Amino acid sequence: MTDQDAVLALNQAFYRAFATYDYPAMEALWARRLPVACLHPGWPLLAGREAVLRSWRELMSQPEPTAVHVRNAVVQMYGDTALVLCEEMIGGGVLAASNLFVREDGAWRMAHHQAGPLAPAAQRRPEPKADTPPRRLH
Amino acid sequence: MTDQDAVLALNQAFYRAFATYDYPAMEALWARRLPVACLHPGWPLLAGREAVLRSWRELMSQPEPTAVHVRNAVVQMYGDTALVLCEEMIGGGVLAASNLFVREDGAWRMAHHQAGPLAPAAQRRPEPKADTPPRRLH
Repeated sequence: MTDQDAVLALNQAFYRAFATYDYPAMEALWARRLPVACLHPGWPLLAGREAVLRSWRELMSQPEPTAVHVRNAVVQMYGDTALVLCEEMIGGGVLAASNLFVREDGAWRMAHHQAGPLAPAAQRRPEPKADTPPRRLH
Repeated sequence: MTDQDAVLALNQAFYRAFATYDYPAMEALWARRLPVACLHPGWPLLAGREAVLRSWRELMSQPEPTAVHVRNAVVQMYGDTALVLCEEMIGGGVLAASNLFVREDGAWRMAHHQAGPLAPAAQRRPEPKADTPPRRLH
């Protein structure tokens, strides 16, 4: 398995853990020693393993798991660090996500997650054209 | 200058280039050889140096530069990769941002930027408590 394949599989495992409320799987995939952080949509920074994992426990304490489907995942490699960019179809909307992975003690682990909403026009595109500049970015 | 200081200075240079419409400075700070990407708020993924830089040219073609102030920047180091997490005060709102930097041919360069809105409650907090779990994350 290439590093790219390993990282994409870990990205899938991250969403599977969330969608099935599998907290032990979620806990296992985050880095233990290297710094971790998380930016859930609309919320301030969670920094550090304890705060990040507490947020996933909190999410998983809600009555019903949220269905999440991932599409258009791409991975960019930087040696022992990898960035996965993907779209999350969740609760009728679409979020764009950046997921950072690091090689720690020989295994790939998650180091950071940020997700934020796509605009309605972008949500309708099954294959967003990366080379088309938006009219208004901020 | 430590790597942390160099990366935080580059993070500041990124926002200064945007706020002053200094396109040459913006162009110079993105990686040349390693893969780059950008997730502007609400827009689909821009992948590759050409698409990313075109988006900044487009932004800088608008009549007035947008004032941007950065606060609460923290850096997490992963060897030759560094992640800066910060808040952007822009246009009366606050965005949370993840900025990824990589060491390329001996120099730190930008590899990825994602920004998304903070919730109003989070915007009011000058120093967000990272260890307080939000009630509802998604």
